[in-house]
Amino acid sequence: MDQDHLRALLAQVSAGAVDVDAALERLRHMPFEDLGFAKVDHHRALRHGIPEVVFGPGKTPDQVSSIVSSLLARAQNVLVTRATAETAQRIQHEHRDAEHFSASGAVRIWRDRTIRGKGKIAVVCAGTSDLPVAEEAQITAEVMGNDVETFHDVGVAGIHRLMHSRERLTEARVVIVCAGMEGALPSVVGGLVAVPVIAVPTSVGYGASFQGLAALLGMLNSCASNVTVVNIDNGFGAGYVASLMNRL
Amino acid sequence: MDQDHLRALLAQVSAGAVDVDAALERLRHMPFEDLGFAKVDHHRALRHGIPEVVFGPGKTPDQVSSIVSSLLARAQNVLVTRATAETAQRIQHEHRDAEHFSASGAVRIWRDRTIRGKGKIAVVCAGTSDLPVAEEAQITAEVMGNDVETFHDVGVAGIHRLMHSRERLTEARVVIVCAGMEGALPSVVGGLVAVPVIAVPTSVGYGASFQGLAALLGMLNSCASNVTVVNIDNGFGAGYVASLMNRL
Amino acid sequence: MDQDHLRALLAQVSAGAVDVDAALERLRHMPFEDLGFAKVDHHRALRHGIPEVVFGPGKTPDQVSSIVSSLLARAQNVLVTRATAETAQRIQHEHRDAEHFSASGAVRIWRDRTIRGKGKIAVVCAGTSDLPVAEEAQITAEVMGNDVETFHDVGVAGIHRLMHSRERLTEARVVIVCAGMEGALPSVVGGLVAVPVIAVPTSVGYGASFQGLAALLGMLNSCASNVTVVNIDNGFGAGYVASLMNRL
Amino acid sequence: MDQDHLRALLAQVSAGAVDVDAALERLRHMPFEDLGFAKVDHHRALRHGIPEVVFGPGKTPDQVSSIVSSLLARAQNVLVTRATAETAQRIQHEHRDAEHFSASGAVRIWRDRTIRGKGKIAVVCAGTSDLPVAEEAQITAEVMGNDVETFHDVGVAGIHRLMHSRERLTEARVVIVCAGMEGALPSVVGGLVAVPVIAVPTSVGYGASFQGLAALLGMLNSCASNVTVVNIDNGFGAGYVASLMNRL
Amino acid sequence: MDQDHLRALLAQVSAGAVDVDAALERLRHMPFEDLGFAKVDHHRALRHGIPEVVFGPGKTPDQVSSIVSSLLARAQNVLVTRATAETAQRIQHEHRDAEHFSASGAVRIWRDRTIRGKGKIAVVCAGTSDLPVAEEAQITAEVMGNDVETFHDVGVAGIHRLMHSRERLTEARVVIVCAGMEGALPSVVGGLVAVPVIAVPTSVGYGASFQGLAALLGMLNSCASNVTVVNIDNGFGAGYVASLMNRL
Amino acid sequence: MDQDHLRALLAQVSAGAVDVDAALERLRHMPFEDLGFAKVDHHRALRHGIPEVVFGPGKTPDQVSSIVSSLLARAQNVLVTRATAETAQRIQHEHRDAEHFSASGAVRIWRDRTIRGKGKIAVVCAGTSDLPVAEEAQITAEVMGNDVETFHDVGVAGIHRLMHSRERLTEARVVIVCAGMEGALPSVVGGLVAVPVIAVPTSVGYGASFQGLAALLGMLNSCASNVTVVNIDNGFGAGYVASLMNRL
Amino acid sequence: MDQDHLRALLAQVSAGAVDVDAALERLRHMPFEDLGFAKVDHHRALRHGIPEVVFGPGKTPDQVSSIVSSLLARAQNVLVTRATAETAQRIQHEHRDAEHFSASGAVRIWRDRTIRGKGKIAVVCAGTSDLPVAEEAQITAEVMGNDVETFHDVGVAGIHRLMHSRERLTEARVVIVCAGMEGALPSVVGGLVAVPVIAVPTSVGYGASFQGLAALLGMLNSCASNVTVVNIDNGFGAGYVASLMNRL
Amino acid sequence: MDQDHLRALLAQVSAGAVDVDAALERLRHMPFEDLGFAKVDHHRALRHGIPEVVFGPGKTPDQVSSIVSSLLARAQNVLVTRATAETAQRIQHEHRDAEHFSASGAVRIWRDRTIRGKGKIAVVCAGTSDLPVAEEAQITAEVMGNDVETFHDVGVAGIHRLMHSRERLTEARVVIVCAGMEGALPSVVGGLVAVPVIAVPTSVGYGASFQGLAALLGMLNSCASNVTVVNIDNGFGAGYVASLMNRL
Repeated sequence: MDQDHLRALLAQVSAGAVDVDAALERLRHMPFEDLGFAKVDHHRALRHGIPEVVFGPGKTPDQVSSIVSSLLARAQNVLVTRATAETAQRIQHEHRDAEHFSASGAVRIWRDRTIRGKGKIAVVCAGTSDLPVAEEAQITAEVMGNDVETFHDVGVAGIHRLMHSRERLTEARVVIVCAGMEGALPSVVGGLVAVPVIAVPTSVGYGASFQGLAALLGMLNSCASNVTVVNIDNGFGAGYVASLMNRL
Repeated sequence: MDQDHLRALLAQVSAGAVDVDAALERLRHMPFEDLGFAKVDHHRALRHGIPEVVFGPGKTPDQVSSIVSSLLARAQNVLVTRATAETAQRIQHEHRDAEHFSASGAVRIWRDRTIRGKGKIAVVCAGTSDLPVAEEAQITAEVMGNDVETFHDVGVAGIHRLMHSRERLTEARVVIVCAGMEGALPSVVGGLVAVPVIAVPTSVGYGASFQGLAALLGMLNSCASNVTVVNIDNGFGAGYVASLMNRL
Repeated sequence: MDQDHLRALLAQVSAGAVDVDAALERLRHMPFEDLGFAKVDHHRALRHGIPEVVFGPGKTPDQVSSIVSSLLARAQNVLVTRATAETAQRIQHEHRDAEHFSASGAVRIWRDRTIRGKGKIAVVCAGTSDLPVAEEAQITAEVMGNDVETFHDVGVAGIHRLMHSRERLTEARVVIVCAGMEGALPSVVGGLVAVPVIAVPTSVGYGASFQGLAALLGMLNSCASNVTVVNIDNGFGAGYVASLMNRL
Repeated sequence: MDQDHLRALLAQVSAGAVDVDAALERLRHMPFEDLGFAKVDHHRALRHGIPEVVFGPGKTPDQVSSIVSSLLARAQNVLVTRATAETAQRIQHEHRDAEHFSASGAVRIWRDRTIRGKGKIAVVCAGTSDLPVAEEAQITAEVMGNDVETFHDVGVAGIHRLMHSRERLTEARVVIVCAGMEGALPSVVGGLVAVPVIAVPTSVGYGASFQGLAALLGMLNSCASNVTVVNIDNGFGAGYVASLMNRL
Repeated sequence: MDQDHLRALLAQVSAGAVDVDAALERLRHMPFEDLGFAKVDHHRALRHGIPEVVFGPGKTPDQVSSIVSSLLARAQNVLVTRATAETAQRIQHEHRDAEHFSASGAVRIWRDRTIRGKGKIAVVCAGTSDLPVAEEAQITAEVMGNDVETFHDVGVAGIHRLMHSRERLTEARVVIVCAGMEGALPSVVGGLVAVPVIAVPTSVGYGASFQGLAALLGMLNSCASNVTVVNIDNGFGAGYVASLMNRL
Repeated sequence: MDQDHLRALLAQVSAGAVDVDAALERLRHMPFEDLGFAKVDHHRALRHGIPEVVFGPGKTPDQVSSIVSSLLARAQNVLVTRATAETAQRIQHEHRDAEHFSASGAVRIWRDRTIRGKGKIAVVCAGTSDLPVAEEAQITAEVMGNDVETFHDVGVAGIHRLMHSRERLTEARVVIVCAGMEGALPSVVGGLVAVPVIAVPTSVGYGASFQGLAALLGMLNSCASNVTVVNIDNGFGAGYVASLMNRL
Repeated sequence: MDQDHLRALLAQVSAGAVDVDAALERLRHMPFEDLGFAKVDHHRALRHGIPEVVFGPGKTPDQVSSIVSSLLARAQNVLVTRATAETAQRIQHEHRDAEHFSASGAVRIWRDRTIRGKGKIAVVCAGTSDLPVAEEAQITAEVMGNDVETFHDVGVAGIHRLMHSRERLTEARVVIVCAGMEGALPSVVGGLVAVPVIAVPTSVGYGASFQGLAALLGMLNSCASNVTVVNIDNGFGAGYVASLMNRL
Repeated sequence: MDQDHLRALLAQVSAGAVDVDAALERLRHMPFEDLGFAKVDHHRALRHGIPEVVFGPGKTPDQVSSIVSSLLARAQNVLVTRATAETAQRIQHEHRDAEHFSASGAVRIWRDRTIRGKGKIAVVCAGTSDLPVAEEAQITAEVMGNDVETFHDVGVAGIHRLMHSRERLTEARVVIVCAGMEGALPSVVGGLVAVPVIAVPTSVGYGASFQGLAALLGMLNSCASNVTVVNIDNGFGAGYVASLMNRL
């Protein structure tokens, strides 16, 4: 898209329809829109063909709200991650179709619901406490145009539950596994399916879990070769990259 | 495959052609072949439709060689990772078509060269010292039936080199990025392409690189959302999972 | 034992058969025998009713050999852990019935083969590379009078192998699980059996396994409640405490 | 139990009393009961013959209360760990015989008080600040049918106190030791008794205790061979596995 | 300055205008002024020719206010870092020209606005969340007499934004780069400019960023040779040392 | 330089002296020269106006030698860091004016000895064991055209030695301080001089120095505001960036 | 003291003045006094001839107050460390001569003010923020009968301040040095005096100080041989052990 | 000493017997003697009244030998720590009265054997493997003029051995305790004696001992208040500071 626009513009330049200075000016100002505190990059959406995403933490309700409005002027779908209750309320007040997911703190405005993924994405969740992270992954994958199926509370210490779901799991084209504590679930799931598994360590646990470090190290050392890992609690990243895979 | 065999067998049972005890016996003994020190799992290959892989470290030349021979009785392609020079020589002595890659220590017997991947896999390598890991990723992806293109020595401190290769990079369906030191390359590549990026931290560096820990943490915290991470120096894992993605 | 001897001696004192100074002298010198570099504690064996154990590392062949000879003057069974090849040879030269286990470096003199454990101890081993640690656990449990059954190469990424052995596993009274990499196996085994599971993290792995730290953290955070953990590579400790449990 | 039910059902199938589809249906739905946020696994209790346990953190009072009620429909004894005051109050409001232990935050419903353990379990506590963890261990062991004796404030810097209790300690069949700071107590206790010692590092301490890491490492490196370790502050796990040992 | 005063005094001594005891007394008492809780060192300013700086954390509003007043009796410019809102208000109440910067918590009294730096200092900021640290660096460099230009929201995953600013960046004599998460920006900037780059890791990020550790390690391992690093979130230190460089 | 060449070329294009395809071709191939294993970047030298540097570790003598020869075809000065004795010998055999510094392993070919730095660079070294790192810093600064003065064995526990050198130290325009163990020296030096101090932690020390981590953390937390830090043992980086500062 | 009492009692036994059972009973109950939640050990004071100390954190005002009262029935001096404001108030309400030190949270009841130390103890404090730790050290040393002199705000970046105090410092028999950040001060002080230096790392600092870890590592690696280290922020321990040294 | 010399010299100056330039020259050159690679500081010995010490690692046999000879020209006693066998041989060849201690690698030339310590120093050693560190402590304390008594192999898991030596231990004026693994011994010893205890963590252990880190953390968190800590394996530092204490 970037290149198409650029070529069109340059063609106009070479054809004499636009002079160089004007072209330069349009190029220079077009991709960014300076809101004072952050450059909202409309190119990013164009490049990837995906919804706009706002990372919530460290931004005030005012800042988030202002960014969301700016984005909705050009985009159909917007996802805000880890918003505070106050921020969520503020967005919902301005945009009535904004959904708020309180476990993960996500806010989603989902207007273009085209399915773009070629198959199903499975989100597997080890325990009840891992649900917020799984929710973030699920919401992200959905807003990016995927059919998502979730499997909850299937930890490794009750391996028969996972076995029970095995058949449905193998129907997925990509599998996301969220687990805290020892982070063993992706290895077991990785051995059951023949597709890529995205492991999300969660900060669930106590003592020597060290806020997800134990799960992270466990997943990086997985003996299943089809496992890759994202950052601790990074449900969004898992949903995002799973969506890219599902479009392949 | 597993299920087809199983159903065929069970059909024979239900049809009375095979009695239950005989069926049980065949089921029980078929999948494993006990070599005394390791159960070579022929099912694994069947399940995933991929070559057999032997993890070299901690095994004697005799053990590796014996496993390879057992595998070749049933499989076309075998990959040994991180073999010692002695182990490599031993395998090549017994199997003349075995290739030895000295940088990574891989040994590859590649008889079935069918292309199974739907597109190209790019392997990007930050510096000369990261080559062994990139080699392992490339060899793995190739033996799993992929067309692989490599981009060497394109570190972030000379960003114009990477820009130079940008166009060719965007033609890949999956990108593997190997980098040590600060591990920044996957973030930059992730921003340039719209496909999944598999980041492989390498143990290249000194001082506060802590044998790859700095690169690993950097990659896990990548601000590019299409990046997932595998273990330090795990070129094999990256090549493996990239191959699965390329078959999607 | 300690108390019985003490009471007998004190009874002699109170009966006037031994005077106080003589009693004091016998008490003071009896438990230790100073070899110059280490006090061999014969009481330890008496207290616990178990074989003598010599921790090999950091001791010269001469030192180990001298300790072993001193111990055999009073004990039936002696176990040397992590002996060098030279130390092993030296012991075997002096004591013809000494067995040498080269994977773990253990040397065992096993003269009293009474079975003291009330049931079977299972030793489960995730991969071929974990065998040295499993061997140390097995040898230790045997010399302490237990019937030991081993299950090799049953890692979590091929969960059907473990399922295959499930029935035999549940016959054990105590289970030892040795695993490196992500250390997930004890959690899965812990969910399958209803007896105590002793998890031994091994230093097998690479990159972010950090010499067994990943496996250790994983096991400490196990979601299976019947799992306790010993030090990295500590097969001896696992065999020892499993033996104590099996005598309960 | 699991197998008995299964065999009974299969016998009915083979006898033609139940057809295959109905059998499959009963199998499939029986073990789980979906409450929306967590699958309460009644099988777990059956498999292990022990009370139901609910891990409190990260669950709302509503969620915990709902799980507890569901469990009490089938189980006699339920233990909730680390409940908030609000959650505890909520449970006590619905189940009048629920006990609340404020130091550890445990809530216990203890209806079947059968003694199942064959001997006594000792819970040793290094200092006043370690009491919450010791309380969790004690409550767990009791609700699992054990006679528990506690030994408080017997840290290693005042070794004569521990010596004072030595005789009573040696009467226990299993010993649990809770200690923070340097975590030295399990080593000393391990040298005094001939039975398994379960060490629980606590997060008590400051500065370089790093929230229990110092105690954890100390216990893992214990020079006493009869010591195994559970996670930091994991009094529940210690009580649980001690109970399993005491049933051996 | 120090030496000039000293020599002048000593000259008076050698000329007999001041006797030794009086000289000693003046020397001894001149440099410090004891406020009871901290020795405000007027020499420091003299030595370096720079504003007085008060490190805010751990001091009460009263303490900070008292130190500021003492300093203003002799200095033109004072900078308070990381002041609480209450402390800032207190200072502004007493000194009407005090500016308060709420993102970083800095309070600045800037009376002598002489430009001392020989060129421009650039402050580059990876994301919106890094702004507080960048603000601290900017304010510090300004109060030390520099012309500062800022570049916001130019993270590595959108490399084209940085490229857009490249020309202006190369006009700076010293570049400060603030970045959290993977901390890759200084490496890329370091490759684009030929002047010293001061990297400031920020604690922005989550999960495996470990409060800035990932960014810190990344920057220390930068493959660009013109990068040096200061402490996490240390915008002040970066602004300070950049000012020293710009005076060279 | 880059831009000058580019503009000249483009001027020729716009003047019709060179057609677009030829221009593109020259642009595309000019900056790199592919040696098969590494792209030697001649642009880098042009961009920074500094000698060519080859990072020695992980390259064979053949590879280093080949790169050096390629570089010398266009550059006057070449520095190889951390070369093995064999690599050094190989280079000296081919280039007779190559100097070998055995402490640091550096090899230097120094043909253009123009002084480019505006003042003196001081290299301060805490102890005898830190000399290899200091040597690397000194050699680097010299080959980049600086007058370097060294101060050896002036650790903080003998503070009077440092005081002895204070006057000469204050004559330097930039100060490099190499120290291992507690890494306290840069803080003290930073308080004595009014110019930028570049701190180089060395891996000298034992036990809890953790290969330079203690010194690194100490330097990052320096209470002297004019201190920035480079990687552990990175004498080259310190010499490089000090040279850039000295040209300002 | 312990032994004297014991011998006196035993003499009575041997003389027939006390029978064995009575003696045993007195021995058994005398040293402890069970308050329900903690065994207050009066022996401890007797053994060491020092005040009673109550570690405040994790105890309720009621608990602390009850312990203090019990102790004052037998001891002259009591020190409570890290008490909350509420606890302090409670103690002061019951014991009017209790002093409260709000920086460190210490509460001191100091009735026997005999000087027992043979010389002076110096407490050196790097910065204003380290004062709470220095206060705890000072108060402890005083209540244990020492003459204490304090030196505040003498950090290493202003080395001339420390030099200013050098002469008075050398008069101390033991020196305590409290410092956060890089923890360099003990090394410098250690080089100036010829007596034992007790280093107390404080948790003062930010970023890579990691709550005192940087200072701790720095002090453990001190190049001054007369430095020993206590735990982070452990002013009490430093004051205690300095007092023991000063009695030597 | 320093001041006396200085005053004498200055008196000569003020009396006109020495002119200022000559005085300055003598001052400047007197304290150091430049050997080319290290400034041997004769002042250090004078300041502390103790033997000269050479830290062996990282110095060649030639360097150590040359330093030792230079020192012996002015000092009676010289201690070389951690010398290689070759270095030791070289020193013994030149100085026939040099003793070599092969466990610790120390070389000692001990000519002035005056006893300066006022009491006995006890060196307690947990296990046989800790002996090299204990040896270094003992040798250091002896050469500094102390009467040393050693207690070997008295680890905490056999607490009765320690109890056996309790009486003799309490006769020491200072106690050094060397222990690896869990490092619990200093806490126990600290509770038995009323004098300062210097804890030396050793790198003895395996797995999660992390080369002495576990023991170090354990000792820093000791619940005995009379314990201070030195670096891992730092027997020399312990012997040194114990000697200073014993002179008090």
